[in-house]
Amino acid sequence: MPSPVRTSAAGEGLRARRRRETEHAIHAAAVRLVEELGLAGVTVDMISAAAGISQRTFFNYFPSKESALTIGPPPLPDALHRRLAHGDPAPRVTLTELLDVLSAHITDDVVPDRELVQATFRIADRHPELRAALHARFDAFEEQVREAVAERMATAPADPRPRLLTGIALAVTRTALEQWSLGTAGDHASPEPDLRQCVDLLHTLMPKT
Amino acid sequence: MPSPVRTSAAGEGLRARRRRETEHAIHAAAVRLVEELGLAGVTVDMISAAAGISQRTFFNYFPSKESALTIGPPPLPDALHRRLAHGDPAPRVTLTELLDVLSAHITDDVVPDRELVQATFRIADRHPELRAALHARFDAFEEQVREAVAERMATAPADPRPRLLTGIALAVTRTALEQWSLGTAGDHASPEPDLRQCVDLLHTLMPKT
Repeated sequence: MPSPVRTSAAGEGLRARRRRETEHAIHAAAVRLVEELGLAGVTVDMISAAAGISQRTFFNYFPSKESALTIGPPPLPDALHRRLAHGDPAPRVTLTELLDVLSAHITDDVVPDRELVQATFRIADRHPELRAALHARFDAFEEQVREAVAERMATAPADPRPRLLTGIALAVTRTALEQWSLGTAGDHASPEPDLRQCVDLLHTLMPKT
Repeated sequence: MPSPVRTSAAGEGLRARRRRETEHAIHAAAVRLVEELGLAGVTVDMISAAAGISQRTFFNYFPSKESALTIGPPPLPDALHRRLAHGDPAPRVTLTELLDVLSAHITDDVVPDRELVQATFRIADRHPELRAALHARFDAFEEQVREAVAERMATAPADPRPRLLTGIALAVTRTALEQWSLGTAGDHASPEPDLRQCVDLLHTLMPKT
């Protein structure tokens, strides 16, 4: 018999997912309105109404309309974080493994709504302060990945390898996501083919030892 | 006999270099003052006085005190840009060659004032808006390098290789510069040993084909 105070792992997961869905709905409404009316023409009230929530709920999710426009990659879920930080064989992490983890995260966890991603980047390009906020989100994600890699490698803080591996892997995924959102290498609903192409290209670009 | 209206390449180079020296002096004065008094306690007047220039001259170089605190990498000089965009054998650019060009730029053209670099990053970490401005400078530099690589490769805009190569090369140089400025791998006056170490590490991290 389940204990009445138990919050199951599945329950936690459901709550986290619902939170992400609401966050996504607010973000989508904000982007759609700003594309239509311009940044100055949109208020938190309008975004809340369009997303079907109260202004109070809005502020439970985002501190400002600017932050609602610039959600970055969601944090690595526990399973992928564990795979990266505690996987076998420790302490080695290869670039290939890191790219596998990031690809899984992008194709499974990141809502692959291509037009929304494209519009978000378009708005950020027009507004330096939003571009900066988006950058900060990507930085935070990079830091999370780097820390997981460093945990796995159990290295001294001075070891440049976690930063180097993470920097390279994120350069590859960033290129793939940009190519996907622009549709320059074909019109794919999922970013997976673009990710695969960029990972393959990496092999041809690498210095031969 | 030289034409009287000729402006020699050497003359142009001198002017550009003097401009960079003044820019650097203003930046150094701004960073020193903000480290001492905090961002809010420093004005353009104070920075101009400390750098020995007029306020009018200040505004010939920077639009605001914030921008004086966040100078990024100087643009690739003509010689390196040419080497990258028009080098042999076109249209191939290897990661090794790109890293050579960036290393030459960093060690020859970027003033290797370690404490100043460190203080700049420290201030930017405390002030998100400055961090954003610094990011924008690095983005502009990345774009310049990417365009040179794309020119050399003569590729269609859809080709992800220039972006991929540039993203990876800048991840490597960023890691090296951070390591150098923090002194985590030894106390080097020049970033050259850190650059060499990171480029060597790159070989060990790469996927084997």
